[in-house]
Amino acid sequence: MGIQERILMLRKQMKNHSIDMYIVPTADFHQSEYVGEYFKARKFITGFSGSAGTAVITLEEARLWVDGRYFIQAAEQLKGTEIQLMKMGQKNVPTLDAYLEEALQNGQTLGFDGRVVSMGNGQKYSKIVENKQGKIVYDIDLIGEIWENRPSLSKEPVFVLEEKYAGESAKSKLYRIREVMREHGATMHILTTLDDICWTLNIRGNDIEFFPLVLSYAIITMNEMHLYIDEAKLSDEIKESMKADGIVLHEYNAIYEDVKQIDVKETILIDPMCLNYAIYSNISDSIKKIEKRNPEVLFKAMKNSTEVGNIRVAQIKDSIAHIKFMKWLKENVGKITITEMSASDKLDEFRAEMGNFIRPSFEPISSYGEHAALCHYTSSPETDVQLKKGNIFLTDTGAGFYEGSTDITRAYALGEIPENVKEDFTVVAMCNLELSNAKFMEGCTGVNLDILARKPLWERNKDYNHGTGHGMGYLLNIHEDPANFQSKYREGNTAVLQEGMILTVEPGVYIEGSHGVRLENEVLVRKGEKNEYGQFMYLETITYIPFDLDAIKPEMLTEEYRGYLNAYHKTVYEKVSPYLNEEEKQWLKKYTREI
Amino acid sequence: MGIQERILMLRKQMKNHSIDMYIVPTADFHQSEYVGEYFKARKFITGFSGSAGTAVITLEEARLWVDGRYFIQAAEQLKGTEIQLMKMGQKNVPTLDAYLEEALQNGQTLGFDGRVVSMGNGQKYSKIVENKQGKIVYDIDLIGEIWENRPSLSKEPVFVLEEKYAGESAKSKLYRIREVMREHGATMHILTTLDDICWTLNIRGNDIEFFPLVLSYAIITMNEMHLYIDEAKLSDEIKESMKADGIVLHEYNAIYEDVKQIDVKETILIDPMCLNYAIYSNISDSIKKIEKRNPEVLFKAMKNSTEVGNIRVAQIKDSIAHIKFMKWLKENVGKITITEMSASDKLDEFRAEMGNFIRPSFEPISSYGEHAALCHYTSSPETDVQLKKGNIFLTDTGAGFYEGSTDITRAYALGEIPENVKEDFTVVAMCNLELSNAKFMEGCTGVNLDILARKPLWERNKDYNHGTGHGMGYLLNIHEDPANFQSKYREGNTAVLQEGMILTVEPGVYIEGSHGVRLENEVLVRKGEKNEYGQFMYLETITYIPFDLDAIKPEMLTEEYRGYLNAYHKTVYEKVSPYLNEEEKQWLKKYTREI
Repeated sequence: MGIQERILMLRKQMKNHSIDMYIVPTADFHQSEYVGEYFKARKFITGFSGSAGTAVITLEEARLWVDGRYFIQAAEQLKGTEIQLMKMGQKNVPTLDAYLEEALQNGQTLGFDGRVVSMGNGQKYSKIVENKQGKIVYDIDLIGEIWENRPSLSKEPVFVLEEKYAGESAKSKLYRIREVMREHGATMHILTTLDDICWTLNIRGNDIEFFPLVLSYAIITMNEMHLYIDEAKLSDEIKESMKADGIVLHEYNAIYEDVKQIDVKETILIDPMCLNYAIYSNISDSIKKIEKRNPEVLFKAMKNSTEVGNIRVAQIKDSIAHIKFMKWLKENVGKITITEMSASDKLDEFRAEMGNFIRPSFEPISSYGEHAALCHYTSSPETDVQLKKGNIFLTDTGAGFYEGSTDITRAYALGEIPENVKEDFTVVAMCNLELSNAKFMEGCTGVNLDILARKPLWERNKDYNHGTGHGMGYLLNIHEDPANFQSKYREGNTAVLQEGMILTVEPGVYIEGSHGVRLENEVLVRKGEKNEYGQFMYLETITYIPFDLDAIKPEMLTEEYRGYLNAYHKTVYEKVSPYLNEEEKQWLKKYTREI
Repeated sequence: MGIQERILMLRKQMKNHSIDMYIVPTADFHQSEYVGEYFKARKFITGFSGSAGTAVITLEEARLWVDGRYFIQAAEQLKGTEIQLMKMGQKNVPTLDAYLEEALQNGQTLGFDGRVVSMGNGQKYSKIVENKQGKIVYDIDLIGEIWENRPSLSKEPVFVLEEKYAGESAKSKLYRIREVMREHGATMHILTTLDDICWTLNIRGNDIEFFPLVLSYAIITMNEMHLYIDEAKLSDEIKESMKADGIVLHEYNAIYEDVKQIDVKETILIDPMCLNYAIYSNISDSIKKIEKRNPEVLFKAMKNSTEVGNIRVAQIKDSIAHIKFMKWLKENVGKITITEMSASDKLDEFRAEMGNFIRPSFEPISSYGEHAALCHYTSSPETDVQLKKGNIFLTDTGAGFYEGSTDITRAYALGEIPENVKEDFTVVAMCNLELSNAKFMEGCTGVNLDILARKPLWERNKDYNHGTGHGMGYLLNIHEDPANFQSKYREGNTAVLQEGMILTVEPGVYIEGSHGVRLENEVLVRKGEKNEYGQFMYLETITYIPFDLDAIKPEMLTEEYRGYLNAYHKTVYEKVSPYLNEEEKQWLKKYTREI
């Protein structure tokens, strides 16, 4: 069945349900960053396979909004359909909201599956419709009605993350969650974000691309936790242990009816940044709702000492794998055929050798030369190129070990590279080192610290068009709220940097059509001296891989930067060399030498 | 009449009006930083003369909340009264809000003069009262009822700030204000903040301590501006010119009744951070209100080119005065008797010599040795001390010239000072230079940049317990919203740094019982290069006074800081030496020498 046919069928269903306009976003029921096959409704109705984009279909027209990453790909994939491509951020291209305001006529009905729309967006749409005396229909999945042979919901088994990895029992976590509920005067707490649920219960699974999460919802009361999940995923052992913790099982989608029955005497704690619109709308207006970030969000961001200990192991493992890969790459480029994709596979081979490796922790970026100038480049058989001497190879990939997730970027000089490329590399190294060596007062957020990573570039009238760093989940989401290094303050997502948080530091430079450099380490937030001025804090870098000295121009470094770099390389050698053979040690010695 | 007697009279009036608890804050009707004599109600009822503090009186007890600056002074001044001192921020001392929650009984009545309470605080109090099924009385000034011989409202004449100083006519300003009103769909705009009104009308006066402001309110409609003011302050000439601009005059306090009569068809633009609770409450609930920051706030913060040109002149004038003062101080300390207060007077003498000097722009801080460790120290005949060799003299003062206001801090070594004091001085100089030399992208706020000024201190486990800098008014408030250098994001007061904004940069170090150093310059926000990354911005320092080289340890400075300091001193000499005689030039040459 072609795209045009699907659109015609959708319009037929729209007419059946008296819907004038239908929105199909890219999302699952849980606001996940990656989604399972079942949830790829927007791809089904448009043919566009990118990871982000929103379609809007009316009885007369169809449009698809995509961001700059996907202008070319979407144009290609929409060919032969009636769908108009809306290039977000381009002049004269209305935003989705502006289009809704414009195109929706008085008294018309707007439809969407309220389960795949966030509470915030749903409320925005609802306001637009209200102003036009129109109607919203959010409880019908029209795509589901026309999608023959829709992939089934993932049925992958759940596994337990043992306490030696998690460091805290589900029971203890529930105790802390209920303390916060009590503080807010809440008697009930609804969870829909998969990482919050998996963290609370110390479970993991395989229902989402890349992140080891489990499709589920939860309602936490003061003495029970109601878990909405396909029971087939749970072993008898897991079920028994859950029962002991007061966890009651329900069918996955039963939550939508259950929330309609909540007693009006309850007070519910919900997170407007996480909840979907359907659940929110199904809760009676007469029930008191406390809108706060989920307490799990801050709890899981502050890693406990067991987790930190494990993450240190994971980082050492990945550092060893990277260093072996770096040596292999430097020694073999130009001699054997290496491509972007085969290099990425080789790195994962070294990772697998380290043991306890579960899977890549996100979609790998493996890019050579001008490809590295595209921040979100994904290598595919169509774009794959061979690595040659004379430019930079960039790898931004991660591993999920039982001991934790990694997210590491390195750029390597292949052979001799041009001076201007070395200059860019050196400045990016300065950016990374400047932030990674920050000392600051307790109370600071990433908005305060972000400038440290940009300063060396800004002084040269350059910049990178992305955040400097993000929080990291422990076998959960790779981009984890609520702390990050960004220049813009965002309510609810600009948390104070606290002990145990793990974030990335990843400045870069991208020169279109030429090259790209990004250097990304993980840092751990730690407490420093406490004195009459207060509690001082600092960042400890826990990734140990050289910044390629073949690409560094030492004469550009001030004493301070030189000191930072030499100190980092000294630590790299100390941490990793014990795991290497004599030849590898000698090689690493050279690449961590003092300059 | 003693304080106890006043409190008894107040309680009598409270009973007459059935009020159980009465709040007396330190404020005028306009949320001004300094207030006129008429408004010192809190001083009248408590005897405490400090610039901040809030009294709460019930039929049984009386309490006064003050911050750390005033613990000692307030304790002294409350002696012999029944008033309990509430030391804000101390352990076991409830906040004012917590006390209201605790002490106010169900069904009781809370009173205050709604004109001296901000809309935000009034709404907070009203919520507390509502939860207790109580009542609020905000339209009676009980202090006014018992205050015999209350000073009258200031009747000082208004003067016009000519266009050669203001750079834009009132007509043009009103046009821009109405554009913003239109954007927001507003038909009416209420102004209560004096600096917003004075800026709009290009008028100044003398009704407030230090700031040359005029007691007034205003209502701006699409074709008129209603100005509520004591007409006696206006010359015939001013009245005529106002008439020509569509300005209609009303009695000062008539606004409270007028806002009750506003047509329900109007849409009113108000600023919740500026408006007082009485005006807000007098506006009918059925009138649509748009709550945004006053458009005047951003407009007046972005100085136009005439203002910037004038401010440069004002800064040169004050720099010359400071340099003459510095030379005089260095040459005369230990020879003639100089005290904190006489030194301050001497500096103002040099200022007056520069011409067009109106008045000090805020309450001067002139402090020697350990006094300089108290950020908010004000010298008085009781505390005044003689300046001696061996420690630091700190002056934080400002001038209001017709060409603009200044706010400058310098610390000077008197004779030879200890090494640790020099170290602190040198680090503060580094802090100032690091921020003042910032380059950044358009879109940054002071929250992003603040860390640059703190970094050199944080690296040494030190800090200062105040903001790094504030916006500066042009013969208006010395602390001007909405831009500043601070580490905490505050909604509505963390504006993007934009061309034409003038801010202070004033890091410091304070060692209790020993010494204090603060170095404060004004910086102008300017546009730098624009390229494919966007618009770059930078700060230009416009204050030209040496950082005392007698207090600098050159060996502590990296190449970068040394470069910054030498470049600054070179500019100081170039800008100021043309206005000096030969002897002064030679002296300045020495104090701006390359190190």
